Parts: sequence; structure tokens; C-alpha cells
Amino acid sequence: MESSIDPRASIQRAVVLVSGGMDSAVTLALAHEQGYACHALSVAYGQRHASELIAAERITHEFAVAEYKIVQVDLRSIGGSALTADIAVPEQGGAGIPVTYVPARNTIMLAIALGWAEVLGANAIFCGVNAVDYSGYPDCRPDFIAAFERLANLATKAGVEGAGIHVHAPLIRLSKADIVREGLRLGVDFAITVSCYQADVDGRACGHCDACRLRAQGFAEAGVADPTRYV
Amino acid sequence: MESSIDPRASIQRAVVLVSGGMDSAVTLALAHEQGYACHALSVAYGQRHASELIAAERITHEFAVAEYKIVQVDLRSIGGSALTADIAVPEQGGAGIPVTYVPARNTIMLAIALGWAEVLGANAIFCGVNAVDYSGYPDCRPDFIAAFERLANLATKAGVEGAGIHVHAPLIRLSKADIVREGLRLGVDFAITVSCYQADVDGRACGHCDACRLRAQGFAEAGVADPTRYV
Repeated sequence: MESSIDPRASIQRAVVLVSGGMDSAVTLALAHEQGYACHALSVAYGQRHASELIAAERITHEFAVAEYKIVQVDLRSIGGSALTADIAVPEQGGAGIPVTYVPARNTIMLAIALGWAEVLGANAIFCGVNAVDYSGYPDCRPDFIAAFERLANLATKAGVEGAGIHVHAPLIRLSKADIVREGLRLGVDFAITVSCYQADVDGRACGHCDACRLRAQGFAEAGVADPTRYV
Repeated sequence: MESSIDPRASIQRAVVLVSGGMDSAVTLALAHEQGYACHALSVAYGQRHASELIAAERITHEFAVAEYKIVQVDLRSIGGSALTADIAVPEQGGAGIPVTYVPARNTIMLAIALGWAEVLGANAIFCGVNAVDYSGYPDCRPDFIAAFERLANLATKAGVEGAGIHVHAPLIRLSKADIVREGLRLGVDFAITVSCYQADVDGRACGHCDACRLRAQGFAEAGVADPTRYV
């Protein structure tokens, strides 16, 4: 006698935003550990550091994702950031919101993730935003994530007719050292991740930008050798 | 003696989402009437009805916009809608959310508008969503717009450090007949707008899809001759 239970019905699907950096790699590892079928999503928004996307695909191979998709959105046509326009990447962060901030980037990436989640019937979105090291970025704060989750449940069939969508930002309150430790526990190969804002085509880091400094500090504070490949 | 007042400082800038359809044309006309310098934005998301974008550009010429931009985002790679995947456009709407609903489309388009608004220093975003005729679309309701505005003010420099961003949806509670009347008052040339979900390359409408039916009803109820060009 055949079972009338659809084995797929019990699968919990998640869309996981994967940028190629260390934070989203750890986030993917956490979603995988929690038993989600992970649909990894990278958003190619015209970023200066395109080698991140190569790293992103490698990371998805490590955690046997159900699917990997790159969606293109041309944020260069909007500009306004050192990552998408002809503005130099600074070597030292100052006060306020840094020029590497990309206007509305996280809103746009989460919105695309929401669209894919709705198509898949996924009830979870994971993203690796972190409020500690990136306190200057307005769209990395817990209030922002909570507001996006509220929006997601008003914007979609899943929210209106279904079980709702939960937006997970499991690293949001962790330090970079905590993220390093969590990644090591989960078996993340940090050597294949790329955090640098201006990595070269082979994914080698500059060692000077804010992202490089924060990453190096994380390994130092966690007391772990830094596997980053520098130019 | 030169004035120390920057004339640009008093200009109120708005990003106006313009799809090429009649609703967004009337919305642009309203933003223009209210004295905003209008930065018109179309999002090319892989829609079936690409002739809408040709119409959008024509409409922006009618209202002397400050700038017109098309941003590409590839929603075909996500699919899930009759407008972006190989799903037939229905001739008659049924109950519930129709297959022409594009998952998270309005969230994605507003997010891109938000990014551009932030780059421009615009404090307003206008969109032509309408809750009356499109009651089946979750992302056309007043609650959705309010939630997006709240998100916008948490997501951006303008919200955190500046004067805030207001999201205007001036048609949200109007009937299609009201929109026709408002457009005529404002001098909108409806003949150049394209609402049809499957218009041909010259922008001629099918006359059968939900969008065509609602549009034709609007002209009929307003007691106005329908200027739509049909195939």
C-alpha cells in the first residue's frame, strides 16, 4: 500500500543569501545544520568585487545546497557607492555611514529572496547581516530585519494565505570572532570565502579595506590562523 | 551680491515608478502637479509585455521629467508568474491571487526606487498601485505600502540621519473610472499608455486579459471613449 503522505511536504525550504563572504558562508552552514533544504541565492548587482560570486558558488558546493541561483540587478545604473560607482574604496572607516554602503542593497537583495521564496514555497529566508561590525550600515540592524519580515508577510501569498515567512539573521548580534568560531564549529572553509571590497580576479584580498581589517581582527581575536589569501 | 541660498535645496525630488500603464501615468502626472522634480523609474524585470517600457518612456516625455532610468532585474530567473514564465495569461480572472501576480514584484521595484531615492536625496517615492481593481494582489494594499514606508525609513541614511522618505500611492483607493477622470483632468494621453499583459510589439492590446477588461470598464464607467489601440 502506498503512503498518502507526500515526503516533500515535510521539507522545510529556505532561501539563503550567499555573497561569497565569511558571514553568509556561516549563515548557510547554520541553515544547513538546522535541516533546511537550502536554496542559495547570490545577487549580481554590478559589485566591484565580482570574485565574491565565484567564491559564493564554491561555498554552496561545500554544503550540498538544493539549488544555487544568481539573479542579476543592475545597481551600477543607480550608483552612489564605492562598490558600484567610481568612488575609491577607503582604507580606513570614518564616522557615520561609510561610502561602501550601497543604497538599499539589503532591501533589494531580501526582496529578490522573498520573490524566490514565494515561488519555492519556502517559509524561511536567511541572511548574514551583522549589526556589530557594520554599525554604520542602517540596513544591518535588528529593527530593519524585523521590519522586512513584517513587510514580507504583507507582501506575499505565503503571508496572506499561508504559514508566513520568517527572516533569519542568525549572526546579527555576533562579533567577528564569534562568527569565526561558529564557522569553525560548522566546518566552514574560510579559505574559499572572499570578504575584501576590492579582491582581485583570483579572490585575493587587498588587506587594507574595512572588510579586510574586520575579517583579520576576527581571526586574531578568535586566536585562529587567518587563512585569507592576500595579494 | 550673490545669494547664499542654493536654489536646488528647495527642490523636492521624487522617484516615480512608471510602468507604461495608465495607473502609473496618472501617478506621474499627480507628482508633477504637486511640484516635485520627478525622476521616473522603470524596472525591466523580464516582463512578457516589454512594449510597456516603450510606452513608459513616451509618458515621461509628456511630463518633462528630470530624468528617466530603466533598471534591469532578471525576475525570469525566478519565474512563478504568467508575466515572467511559460504560464498562459488567463482571459478571465478567478478567485484568489491570479497567476499574473509576480512574486514580490512591488517589493523589488520599491526597493530599487528606494536605492535611487537615497542616491538622489529624494524624500518621496510615488507608485501607482491600486487596491480596488487588484484586490487579489497582496502587494497592492494600503497595509503593504505603510509597511514599506516604515522599512524605507529604517533601511536608509535618509531615514536614519535625514528628513525621512514618504511613499505615496495616490491611486490606492480609487476605482478605474476615478483614475480615468483624474488622468483626463491632468492631461494624460491614455492612447500612449499600455496596460495589456500581452500587448504586441507595437503596444496594441489583446482586449481579453484582466488588465484589458479592467481598463475598458474604467473608460466605460467614466463615460469616456476608450482610446486604447487593440490588435
